[in-house]
Amino acid sequence: MKASEITGGRPVAVIGAGLVGAGWAIVFARAGLQVRMHDHSPQVLERAPALVAQQLQSLESHGLLAEPAQAIRERIVAVPDLRDALDGAAYAQESVLEKVDVKRALMERIDALGFDDLIVGSSTSGFPASDFSLDLKMSPRALVAHPVDPPSLVPIVELVGSPQTSKETVDWTDRLMQAAGQSVVRVNREIEGFILNRLQAVLLREAWTLVADGIASADDIDKTIRDGLGWRWSFMGPFETIDLNAPDGVADYARRFGPLFHRIAQSRDQQRPWDDELIADVEAQRRTRLPASALDERRSWRDEQLMRFAGHRRKTGGG
Amino acid sequence: MKASEITGGRPVAVIGAGLVGAGWAIVFARAGLQVRMHDHSPQVLERAPALVAQQLQSLESHGLLAEPAQAIRERIVAVPDLRDALDGAAYAQESVLEKVDVKRALMERIDALGFDDLIVGSSTSGFPASDFSLDLKMSPRALVAHPVDPPSLVPIVELVGSPQTSKETVDWTDRLMQAAGQSVVRVNREIEGFILNRLQAVLLREAWTLVADGIASADDIDKTIRDGLGWRWSFMGPFETIDLNAPDGVADYARRFGPLFHRIAQSRDQQRPWDDELIADVEAQRRTRLPASALDERRSWRDEQLMRFAGHRRKTGGG
Repeated sequence: MKASEITGGRPVAVIGAGLVGAGWAIVFARAGLQVRMHDHSPQVLERAPALVAQQLQSLESHGLLAEPAQAIRERIVAVPDLRDALDGAAYAQESVLEKVDVKRALMERIDALGFDDLIVGSSTSGFPASDFSLDLKMSPRALVAHPVDPPSLVPIVELVGSPQTSKETVDWTDRLMQAAGQSVVRVNREIEGFILNRLQAVLLREAWTLVADGIASADDIDKTIRDGLGWRWSFMGPFETIDLNAPDGVADYARRFGPLFHRIAQSRDQQRPWDDELIADVEAQRRTRLPASALDERRSWRDEQLMRFAGHRRKTGGG
Repeated sequence: MKASEITGGRPVAVIGAGLVGAGWAIVFARAGLQVRMHDHSPQVLERAPALVAQQLQSLESHGLLAEPAQAIRERIVAVPDLRDALDGAAYAQESVLEKVDVKRALMERIDALGFDDLIVGSSTSGFPASDFSLDLKMSPRALVAHPVDPPSLVPIVELVGSPQTSKETVDWTDRLMQAAGQSVVRVNREIEGFILNRLQAVLLREAWTLVADGIASADDIDKTIRDGLGWRWSFMGPFETIDLNAPDGVADYARRFGPLFHRIAQSRDQQRPWDDELIADVEAQRRTRLPASALDERRSWRDEQLMRFAGHRRKTGGG
């Protein structure tokens, strides 16, 4: 179904016009929707068209747009007033500062405006919707829609409702996101870190412990993923990977390797936080590989690699 | 340095001529080395050239060979006698059956042959070298060199010595593997699962627990990696990823997110093995996505995707 059929021809709003907001504006405009960008800061809002234009140009130069960047840009307008931005909109994607009181205050302002069928998704990576969207008229229509930066490039989005979010809200947002080309993950209950950061957290905890114990260098651990595990995970997930890695599929795999993986998990005491000494060690290892002065240049390289990976994925299916 | 300079012009041997052995034969022959393949089973050895030819043809059809497949194939010979295979060889890659007594018996046979500068690397994914290579004349020259299947495609190799392995042996094998185009990870002490399977284990433990707790489906967890986390990990490791994800690098990241990741790790009780009920649940979810009858076809798809990913990585640097 087309995105505009899901919104009933209504526009969407993007609240918070920084980098993540600009990415979301592109996601929705690329799907044919009219997009209103809003920010409480006139300065930020003024810079938003340039951020959008920059991301669009990168996408276009990598052949990742189905139509001219100009056509997509024309569907995005900057709207200085919050009420004007939301009036008649079917959906608002909130990407304001990652502070719980800022998000709560915005939700209360939106609630007071009284748009009684507006759905609001928050880009927060850290806070469950319960932290900022409970006990409002709009609580059944508020949820978390957590992207990876930038959402215009990396397709994943995690949808997580609070206990007060209606199933209809999650289902509708799921359809909208899919129609806009995103890959939707449904997180059925609120949990710290949602799915993506939980998976990253446990892998990083093991990685840091291996460095702390002198088993391997940070660089060698990076190689293990980049030149090994990451190859399969770049087009299959961990379950499909093991499903194909035992003759009779995932249950067969679990019976063969479950005890080993259980022992590995059990061998770890998770009580020790990363302390200053360990952080200094990893920092020193990284700065040997990449001086602090080169971080920005390397980030541009990363963004370029992501664009190329997106092009590769487009050719090979998925994502 | 060229691989043949490291071996001093001597050939290498591949002991165990199954799929993994065939992959290793290609790795070394592609690097310009003469390769002797041996298997204690004449039937397996007889089929080896076909396995090699098949892998070479796939690599060639994806533009992943720098010279004609025929030229590489001609550097590989099948040698029915173990002594003949090892006589004069600088290195032997052992890829026999994954049973500790089989590996120990082979090490003892090799030891008895008395080649006093032969280095032997084992492809084992599960056993530390201590389990099968201690207290032999060759113990200082035996280590684990654990690949991902197939080593002719995925570049990672984990080098792990036993306490009796000399540093010279690990250093020399490191140079040989790098000269042959592999990406070398040094595991400084024996540890269950080495690095790669430990990282996989902790991520899978969390993934299975999320399914067990009804937080997300196996398919949605797959998406989280495939369409999200896996994008960065396909060209950077986890440390470089977080190093670029905070304004001032990895120490900055650790201070911002360390406490969250610590809480996530602590929230898990690792005492519960995957039980039959959970295994049946995940199995049912996977079989809904992919019937058992389609597993083989999907494995061919995976191998094709790996080839395409290798081609992508070749164009974009790394690997």
